[in-house]
This record gives sequence, structure tokens and C-alpha cells, in this order.
Amino acid sequence: MDFRPVLYILGILLSTLSVSMAFPLAVDLYYDNSDWKVFFACIMVTSFFGGLLVLANSKDNVTIRPKQGFMLISLSWVVLCLFSALPFWLSGTGLSFTDAFFESTSGLTTTGSTIFTDIESLPRGILIWRSMLQWLGGIGVIIMAMSILPMLKIGGMQLFETELSEKEKAMPRTAKLASSIGIIYVLLTLFCTFLYNMTGMSLFDSLAHAMTTISTGGYSTYDTSFSHYPFIWPEIVAVIFMIAGGIPFVLYLKAVNGNIKPFLQDTQVRWFLSILGISTLLMVIYLTSISNMDFEVAFVKSLFNITSVMTGTGFTSDDYGIWGVFPTSLFFFLMVVGACAGSTTCGIKIFRFQVLYSVSNMQMKKLLHPHGVFIPYYNKKAIPVDVQTSVMSFFFLYALCFALIAVALSLVGLDFVTAMSGSATALSNVGPGLGPIIGPAGTFQPLPDSAKWILSFAMLLGRLELFTVLVMLSPHFWRR
Amino acid sequence: MDFRPVLYILGILLSTLSVSMAFPLAVDLYYDNSDWKVFFACIMVTSFFGGLLVLANSKDNVTIRPKQGFMLISLSWVVLCLFSALPFWLSGTGLSFTDAFFESTSGLTTTGSTIFTDIESLPRGILIWRSMLQWLGGIGVIIMAMSILPMLKIGGMQLFETELSEKEKAMPRTAKLASSIGIIYVLLTLFCTFLYNMTGMSLFDSLAHAMTTISTGGYSTYDTSFSHYPFIWPEIVAVIFMIAGGIPFVLYLKAVNGNIKPFLQDTQVRWFLSILGISTLLMVIYLTSISNMDFEVAFVKSLFNITSVMTGTGFTSDDYGIWGVFPTSLFFFLMVVGACAGSTTCGIKIFRFQVLYSVSNMQMKKLLHPHGVFIPYYNKKAIPVDVQTSVMSFFFLYALCFALIAVALSLVGLDFVTAMSGSATALSNVGPGLGPIIGPAGTFQPLPDSAKWILSFAMLLGRLELFTVLVMLSPHFWRR
Repeated sequence: MDFRPVLYILGILLSTLSVSMAFPLAVDLYYDNSDWKVFFACIMVTSFFGGLLVLANSKDNVTIRPKQGFMLISLSWVVLCLFSALPFWLSGTGLSFTDAFFESTSGLTTTGSTIFTDIESLPRGILIWRSMLQWLGGIGVIIMAMSILPMLKIGGMQLFETELSEKEKAMPRTAKLASSIGIIYVLLTLFCTFLYNMTGMSLFDSLAHAMTTISTGGYSTYDTSFSHYPFIWPEIVAVIFMIAGGIPFVLYLKAVNGNIKPFLQDTQVRWFLSILGISTLLMVIYLTSISNMDFEVAFVKSLFNITSVMTGTGFTSDDYGIWGVFPTSLFFFLMVVGACAGSTTCGIKIFRFQVLYSVSNMQMKKLLHPHGVFIPYYNKKAIPVDVQTSVMSFFFLYALCFALIAVALSLVGLDFVTAMSGSATALSNVGPGLGPIIGPAGTFQPLPDSAKWILSFAMLLGRLELFTVLVMLSPHFWRR
Repeated sequence: MDFRPVLYILGILLSTLSVSMAFPLAVDLYYDNSDWKVFFACIMVTSFFGGLLVLANSKDNVTIRPKQGFMLISLSWVVLCLFSALPFWLSGTGLSFTDAFFESTSGLTTTGSTIFTDIESLPRGILIWRSMLQWLGGIGVIIMAMSILPMLKIGGMQLFETELSEKEKAMPRTAKLASSIGIIYVLLTLFCTFLYNMTGMSLFDSLAHAMTTISTGGYSTYDTSFSHYPFIWPEIVAVIFMIAGGIPFVLYLKAVNGNIKPFLQDTQVRWFLSILGISTLLMVIYLTSISNMDFEVAFVKSLFNITSVMTGTGFTSDDYGIWGVFPTSLFFFLMVVGACAGSTTCGIKIFRFQVLYSVSNMQMKKLLHPHGVFIPYYNKKAIPVDVQTSVMSFFFLYALCFALIAVALSLVGLDFVTAMSGSATALSNVGPGLGPIIGPAGTFQPLPDSAKWILSFAMLLGRLELFTVLVMLSPHFWRR
């Protein structure tokens, strides 16, 4: 196997990462914080390795075959997480390497679980670096989901292959796509920053939160996340842009090109908004009737926190861990749902539930009419058998990984609620878990190192749609 | 739709049930307990309705089409649970109708969750009736799994269709099968009774426990289940016969007919014993190293309780709820595994995991070699596509039902651990859940009535392999 194309692209990604470190450096310089030296050192190290990889592996014609594709994706994410951890490790925050890696992985995968306990006191450079990691991770995920995953036929993502022109070659197409999507992503972020700023947030906080909202990441500049703001407008803006981050970005692309119809007719978006609506309604009824909350408060808190958990953002605006037994269970299952494929969200994702529902419904019909012919549909098109199998295997492996990670977490000493919700929140890149330790009012700081490594692995596993990682763990991969 | 064949068979089943009530009547008479009158009344009522249905719907030629098949199965189980509840409701134990129905449903579905709190003080007739319900439910399940479910192609059970001669008509074949399997079932029960008796159990307890062991039911004649016995031999005998109850009964049939090979080569049995072995090994290592338990004690307790949970029996020989965090998580996931198809156990079942593993493995290979052709195998035979889809839909619906039932249980006020484990234990017909209320040291008595109805529904849903019930809830069923 020729590793050079893999290392070449990895070099480009590392170089890009090093360039992006200039922004927190500038922020630290502006606020007169000595941590700018740390970022300077990190830029040197990262660009050195990045440049080296580019120069040593430069080739005229880069073609990527499946094996290299899997290796490229897995290796890139792990290496980028490692280099992104450097500023956390080297800065004055006193983090262990485990904690630094956990924080950067949670950032790049747009999870949002944090090990920091006094976030307000962190230097501005580190704060903006946390937000930037999620923002960069978000755009990385969208591009990966639109170009590479469908090509590799991962977990039914081949459904979205035909959405883009097939004639062009993979690399130029990916580059072109990245720039179009990038512009939309930047515009949405700026618009979100502007609206946050309008609600009374400082410009710094507005930008930091906008970057973690549109990427459905969830890092906040405050320990208390959105509870920090005593007025509801930041929550409303966040809901809008978390939903915006949960919609397939290809639909924005089409809408910008004048084709608004797919946006309005996409069944995945409809299912996403319906599940969100029904869950919010149930929660509002519960909170107003059982917990005697005011309707307005119940509505905003429900909508905000449910949107946050379902899209895997992980902002909190209340300690929903103490809302009662029903909210706890509902939040637990909503964690794994996720939003649309081709967005910044993680989890099982809506389209897979649509495929699973369609196939199961067909099964029911077939049981009643054994000689009838029934075909499951997605977005008015018949679902090919290989996509059905692919999606269903994904669902099984998701459940299996969830179980194994939960058992592993309990083996290193985590209690039932922490282990179960920790496994779900990491695998689905949500952020907070449930229970007193990692719940919406807690942090991941008190967990043992072993648990942090297991969770970091789970975040990457979920972010890379399982198969990318699992394929590399299988013996077939290493066989000639 | 012609309901008469459905009602006719229902009548036969009710008549059989009424005949079986003669045994607890005889037991009560022998022990001079006035409850014999209750059983006498129940026999009258049950045989009256049974006889009426038989006479009113008698037909020469009984043919069952899919719709009638689904209705027959669902209706039979519900009606039999209702009539079986009568002795509990009418006897001097003071049970509410909800509790009586919960206890009889838990009995017939071989679940083993109980609402009784002072089991030792119950009259002998009621004790033997509890055991008989599980014993009758067990043989009912085996016959259903060997003849009706494969015919209806439920959840991949069509894999086992070809195991029996296809030439014969369904009804005579089922009758012939029932008698052969019945003899094996009775012999195993008698052998188990004999061995229990050898270990020092009274004859009554031996019979009562033998009936609930071979049926992997789990009702005991003591509050403390197997902890009642201070010596390990009853546990050893129980392990042997719980495993025996988890093996496909068709293999016994073949072995009796001189063909021992399938027994030794069946991959389902191998996987079953392997998962059992690995889980026990992990638990023994944990208990001896972390909890400092003696090796011998750790081994027997682990083997007994893991076999009990995995086969869905539900006997307990220790409060494993206090063994630690790892055992709790492991038991939680083992609950849904179950044992082999065609046995008395419930849960997802081993063969489905084999199919899911085989299909997922094929997916991995396909990702690496997109143009290769890979076929998943089960027991050295290619798995047809419809079986793959069927099994994977089953897995998805299992997860979905688990989530909905857990959320429903939390909505009526159950805490996270009780709701999660309650949903899993009911759906998989295990018996005890986890946590202080319904865990191995608790009972289902303190739960609200609403939770008991939800759990009763879940037990039936799991026992009838989901599809049988779900199909009837779908609008297609009621459409002409």
C-alpha cells in the first residue's frame, strides 16, 4: 500500500491547523496575554511536521483507494487531535496530557464535553482556541460527509452520492465543494455572531459562541453555559443556529444556487423538525403539569435543551438533570438520535431512522402478504438493498459499540448512569452526560484518566461513523 | 376474515388450561387447603368458555392464513394470561386484578418477575400454579418457535423452517411435533426434579423449581430464591438445566432419533456457551480481584447468576446489585442477549447476533473491496437477503421498543435505573431488574399499577417476538 498520498494530505491538514493557530495567538497578543508564546511554539512545531509531510510525499497525481481513504480519515483525525492538544498542554492552565487530548478531541469532534472547571478564568487565547477547534471540526465533518463518506459507502451514506455531480474527479470536486460550503459556513457564523451581539453578548463571547453553535459543538466561555445570561434572547438565537447546523449543508448550497425546492421538500429535514417538535411538546406538558413550571420558561428551556441534546451541541441553559425522571430518560435516548446527514451533527442521524422505519414497515407488510413485493422508499426513491444492509449494520454496530464502551467505563469504576450516559454522549458527540458527575451541571474533570481515554476513543469512533475505525481494526484490513 | 379457526384453537387452548388447573386443585386438597375451591371455580369458568368456543367454531378443515396466525397467537396469549390470573385474583392472597394479571403474564411468558413479597407463606396450590404457568408457557414457546414463527417468517425465524419436514400439513405436523417435544420436555423436567431432590430439596420444592428451571422461568418457592439453600448443589443442578432450557429443542429431538451430530456442530449452541463462558470468566476475575471474593464462591455465584440472567430465567443466588458497578452494567446488557432460538428463552437470541455479526463482517469486507462479492453465512449456509433484512429489522424494533417502554416507565415515575432495567427485563422475559426496587433483592410489588400494565404489555411483546404484536397494531392489518 502506498502511504504517500495519505501522508501528503495529512501534511496539508497539519499546515492548515498551524495557520489557524495564528488567530488565538493574535487574540492573546491583543489582550496582552503571555500565552501567545505558547501558540507561537505550537505553530512552529505543527507547521514543521506539516511542511515535512507535504514536501516528503509530494506527488503529481494523487489517487485515493478505499484502504488509503480509511487510513487517511482515521489518521488525520487522531493526528490533528494530538497537535490541537498542544496549546492546552503547554499553556499555563496546568492540564495533564490526558486532559489536553480529551479537550482537543472533544473540540475537533464537536462533542463539547469539557474537563475545565473554571472556564471564566481561562486566557482568551485558550477560550477562542476551544471554539475554533469545534468550528474547524464542524466544517471538516461537513466536507467529509458530503464527499468522502459517500464515496467510501459508509453506513448508507452512499444515498447522498448522487447529490453532487459524479463526473468530476474526487479531489478537485472536494476542493470546489469545500470552498462553496466554506463561504456559506463563514456567512452563517458571522450572521450568528451579529445576532448574539444584538442580544447583549460581548463581541468576543458572540464570536466564540457562534463558532460552537453553527458547528453544534457546545463549548461555552462560561462554566454555566447559557445559564450565564439572565435573558432568553441568546437562547432563541442559539436554537435557530443549532437547527441551522443540523440541516444538510448541500441544501444551503442548492438554495444559494436558486434551487430552494429541495430545502422545502427534504424529508430528512421534516423528520428532524418533527421529532424536535414532538419531544419539546412532551417536555413542556410534563414540566408545566408535573413540575409546575411557568409555560414560557418551560417552553424556552425545553426547546433550547432538547435542540442542544438532539443536535449534539451540548449547551445547557438549566440543570435538566433535576427536572425529573421522565426528562432524564427522554434526554438519554434523544442523545443518540442526532440530526441530518451532511450537517455538523453526529449520532445515528435522522436519515438512518427513516431507512430503518421504511424497511421495518415493509417487513410488516410482507408478513401479512408473503407473496407481495414491497419496496422501502427514502425521499421518494427506492432504497437499494446494499444501502438497507449498510444502514442496518451501522445501527447494530452503534448499539454494540455503545454497550462495549458502557461496560468498559463501568469496568474503570464509573456508576451506571455515568457509564451509560457517558458512552452515549461520547459516541454521539453530544457533550454533557447525565447524573451528578458528568451531567449538565458537572464536568468530565473528576473522571479517572482511563475513562477519559475510553471516551476520547468513543468520540472519534462516533465522529468517523464507526466503520472508518472498525474497518482498520479488522484483520481484513491488514491482509494483503 | 374468518375468525372461526382462531376461536376454535383458542377454545382448545382454554380447555387445556382448565384441565391443567386440576393439578394445583389436587395439591391443595392433599395439603388440606381450602383454596381448592378457588381452583374448582376457575376450572368451571375456564372450561365453560373453552368448550363454548370449541363447539361454536368447530369446522372440518382448519386452514390458517397469516392474518389469522398473528391474531391467533396474540389473542391466545392475552386470553390465556387473563384466565390464568383467575386463581391469583380469587384466592386468599388478596391480590388486585392488576397484580394477578401481572403475575400470570410474568408466569406464562416465563419472565419470572413477581409481585409476591412473602412467598413462603403462600398456599401450596398457588405456588405450584405459578410454577406450572411457567412450565406450560415454556412448552408453548418451544412449539410456537418451531412451527408457527418460522411459517410466519417472523424476525428471521424462517431460517429454522427447513429443519422439519415441509411435506406435511401445518396442523398435523404441529400436533406430532408437540407430542415428541412434550415427551422430551417432561423427561427433562422429571430428571431435573430427581436431581434437585438428590441435593436435599423437598420433593415439592424440587418439582416446583424443576418446572421453572427447564422453562427458564425463574419463579421460586422462596423470597430469597436460591439463596435459601446454604449449599451449592442446587445451584449446580440449576445451571445445567437452565442451559438445557436454552438449547434448541429440535436438537434433542434429532439426538433422540440417533442423530447426535447437529447437537455437537450447531454454531448457535457454541456461541451461546462461549458468551456464557467469557462473561463468567470476566465476572470471576472482577469479583476475585476487585471485590476480594473467594474463587470458589465467585465462580459458582458468577456462573449461576450469569446463566440465570442470560437465559432469562431470573433465579438469584446473591444480591448481585451490590457486587459493584461493572457487574451491574454487564448484567444489564446480558439481559437482552437471550439464548438459542427454538428454546424456552426470550431476548434477542444468539442466532440473530450471529446473523448481525456475519452481515456486518461482510459489510467491512465490502468497504475495502467495493467490487467484491461477499455473502454472509449462518451454520455454513448462505443467509438469504430476506432473512438478513428480517433479523436487522427485528434488532431495530427491539431497540425502539426498549426505548419507548423505558420512557413510558419513567413517565409514570420510575427512576432511571428501574425504568431502563425494567424495560429490558420485561422485554427479554428475564425476571429481576436492577436497582433497589426491582433488583435481585426486590420485588415488583411497590411499582404503580400503570407501570405493571406497561411491563405486562412488554413481557407479551417480547415473548411474541415483537412482530406478532406490532403487525396487529399497524393500519395495514385492519385494511381489507
